[in-house]
Amino acid sequence: MTQSKASAQAAHPLTLIPGPVEFTDEVLAAMATPSQSHVSPQFVEVFGDALALLRQLFFNTDKRAQTFAIAGAGTLGWDFVASNLIEPGEDALVLHTGYFADSLADCIATYGGKPTQLKAPIGDIVMLDAIETALKEKTFKVVTITHVDTSTGVLSDIKSIAALVRAVSPETLVIVDGVCSVGVEEIRFDDWDLDLVLTAPQKAIGVPAGLSIFIASGRALDVFRARKAPPTSYYASFAKWLPIMQNYEAKKPSYFSTPPVQNIHALLASLKQILAVPLADRFAAHARMSDRIKSTIASYGLKQVAVREGYQANGMTAVYLPDGVALPDLLPRIASRGIVLAGGLHREIATKYFRIGHMGVSVTDEDREDFDKALAAIKDSLAEAGYTV
Amino acid sequence: MTQSKASAQAAHPLTLIPGPVEFTDEVLAAMATPSQSHVSPQFVEVFGDALALLRQLFFNTDKRAQTFAIAGAGTLGWDFVASNLIEPGEDALVLHTGYFADSLADCIATYGGKPTQLKAPIGDIVMLDAIETALKEKTFKVVTITHVDTSTGVLSDIKSIAALVRAVSPETLVIVDGVCSVGVEEIRFDDWDLDLVLTAPQKAIGVPAGLSIFIASGRALDVFRARKAPPTSYYASFAKWLPIMQNYEAKKPSYFSTPPVQNIHALLASLKQILAVPLADRFAAHARMSDRIKSTIASYGLKQVAVREGYQANGMTAVYLPDGVALPDLLPRIASRGIVLAGGLHREIATKYFRIGHMGVSVTDEDREDFDKALAAIKDSLAEAGYTV
Repeated sequence: MTQSKASAQAAHPLTLIPGPVEFTDEVLAAMATPSQSHVSPQFVEVFGDALALLRQLFFNTDKRAQTFAIAGAGTLGWDFVASNLIEPGEDALVLHTGYFADSLADCIATYGGKPTQLKAPIGDIVMLDAIETALKEKTFKVVTITHVDTSTGVLSDIKSIAALVRAVSPETLVIVDGVCSVGVEEIRFDDWDLDLVLTAPQKAIGVPAGLSIFIASGRALDVFRARKAPPTSYYASFAKWLPIMQNYEAKKPSYFSTPPVQNIHALLASLKQILAVPLADRFAAHARMSDRIKSTIASYGLKQVAVREGYQANGMTAVYLPDGVALPDLLPRIASRGIVLAGGLHREIATKYFRIGHMGVSVTDEDREDFDKALAAIKDSLAEAGYTV
Repeated sequence: MTQSKASAQAAHPLTLIPGPVEFTDEVLAAMATPSQSHVSPQFVEVFGDALALLRQLFFNTDKRAQTFAIAGAGTLGWDFVASNLIEPGEDALVLHTGYFADSLADCIATYGGKPTQLKAPIGDIVMLDAIETALKEKTFKVVTITHVDTSTGVLSDIKSIAALVRAVSPETLVIVDGVCSVGVEEIRFDDWDLDLVLTAPQKAIGVPAGLSIFIASGRALDVFRARKAPPTSYYASFAKWLPIMQNYEAKKPSYFSTPPVQNIHALLASLKQILAVPLADRFAAHARMSDRIKSTIASYGLKQVAVREGYQANGMTAVYLPDGVALPDLLPRIASRGIVLAGGLHREIATKYFRIGHMGVSVTDEDREDFDKALAAIKDSLAEAGYTV
């Protein structure tokens, strides 16, 4: 691990939610980079390197694909999908494993696409046979998968779903919402034949919020180029941004809209730290921490929202409250011990569970002992709230 | 002045372009704020305060108006206008004083609006009688004005234009692109009866790029509420963001898309510095520096792109190159002296001029002597390039 063992940061509550996560000192220092022109050779080098290193996070070597990093948020990635890869009236199959599929369907409809949701029961995945049946019923322009739904902690098997889509409906684009998965779950973009994976920086990439990050395949870009009509968004248009990203990666300055210089410096700083260790080791470290947290939670007699073994996220855990303990009984007690966890988000069960994020430096730098502290705080707070572990 | 006199920042080239500008140490320190949950009481306080202080920058006290600060860029503000305040098929009158009006017209057309451009000759303003004639020809849903076009340095008289619009076409919304003006030019949002002013942080607000900032009037929000159809953007939707901004300003956590926590901390830090001094003093300091730069440039025998006295920006100067000196002869020589200036941007004259930004701490903290250095660097570099001042 190249990450600093002793943090230079001011004492602060540990943010152990499913994003934003704790950041390394080097990433925060990069956020404070003095002013730099967005077209200066110094910044062009940094932006180009960040776009190139992003490819490694996706195991991408096919240069027909392109990485993007744009001022915005994870949510903005949906606008890119809906306004560039789907034309008005075209169908989208939205696999639903929680809150975020509802929002994505809403986004697709905003730009004139026709979303069809295929819903799993709360805490479960959408079954492959149901997806196959749906794909045979009509032609979908895209299939969208929430890799990890941050509202439930359900992990979808994007490799198998992508293979199924390619077999049954070869022209359909496979879109992955990787907001809570990129950097913690394996994503082999080229090998698994994916078309677009979007994410945000403040989760397992370990960079403050403020960017929309994604990679689009050559196939996706060809579909964009073959559009009958121009993109239906201005700021979220591939027509505007694709040449900009290509130019920066080729180390040439280019202008459409001023990039967030400091956030891009922070992105490069974090990618260098992440890629200094084999990604397989990083994923394994997160899997081990996830197993430890999930088994400890189970030993407290608590149940996960994500019910199916093997389909539980490695970067977060959603935990049902025990009977008789409400969120306001628990989270403030945990907070008083210096640990910030998150409440529920899924509309139907929001008050019934809480969420722990375990991504980034809190996982990879074991000397921080963040989760020793967090698990102890949960146990003690449950006891204080009247639940005996 | 409350700004620090001695910078703690690493030695770096001075960025004196029309954004990004130099930042204060306090703003950069805020960019490095350790991780914080976006719904924590600590962050809710910071975000709410920033939204409230933003009102002061616009002399706004009418609470029917709302300030917004959203992860993105100045450009994204146009998407908010085009997708919330104009419905498909409706007309927009775009006053053109440079590059940015073309882009704004493109944005309006993307969402189905019908832009009519009223073009000034390069370097000049659009005349009031031409605007009056246009307003009488058809009903426009909005009139857009680029307060300062960053490609030319032309300053438009938004107060007079707004008064004219209100007299001739009272229902028409007055939209101001204040990207290169907010924080340096006076903007009395309530008194001048404006409807939306959008800006970006990396200019006279003195915060790194990464935000779309704007204020919308009660009238504009009522027009939005009366839409026949929903907004045509998802991420840039008032329907999504208005309740979020209202909640944060009321110090209540709220979620649509994760806000850029560190950028918002930096925004608050800068607004506190800016508002520690009367705004009239700040505007006067910028006007004095602008006069000094413009008169020095004239004493070198160089001409401004913005030709009309009284309609020249106070935060930037666009300067035609002398005969026989090309941009590659000049800017690298200035850069070798530690000063970063910008090339041209207006498509028709891009290679014929350069631009100086004079906004923010480089202006207000005279002890920095940034423009003593810059003006000397320009003079010496011109001589080196064979032009005798």
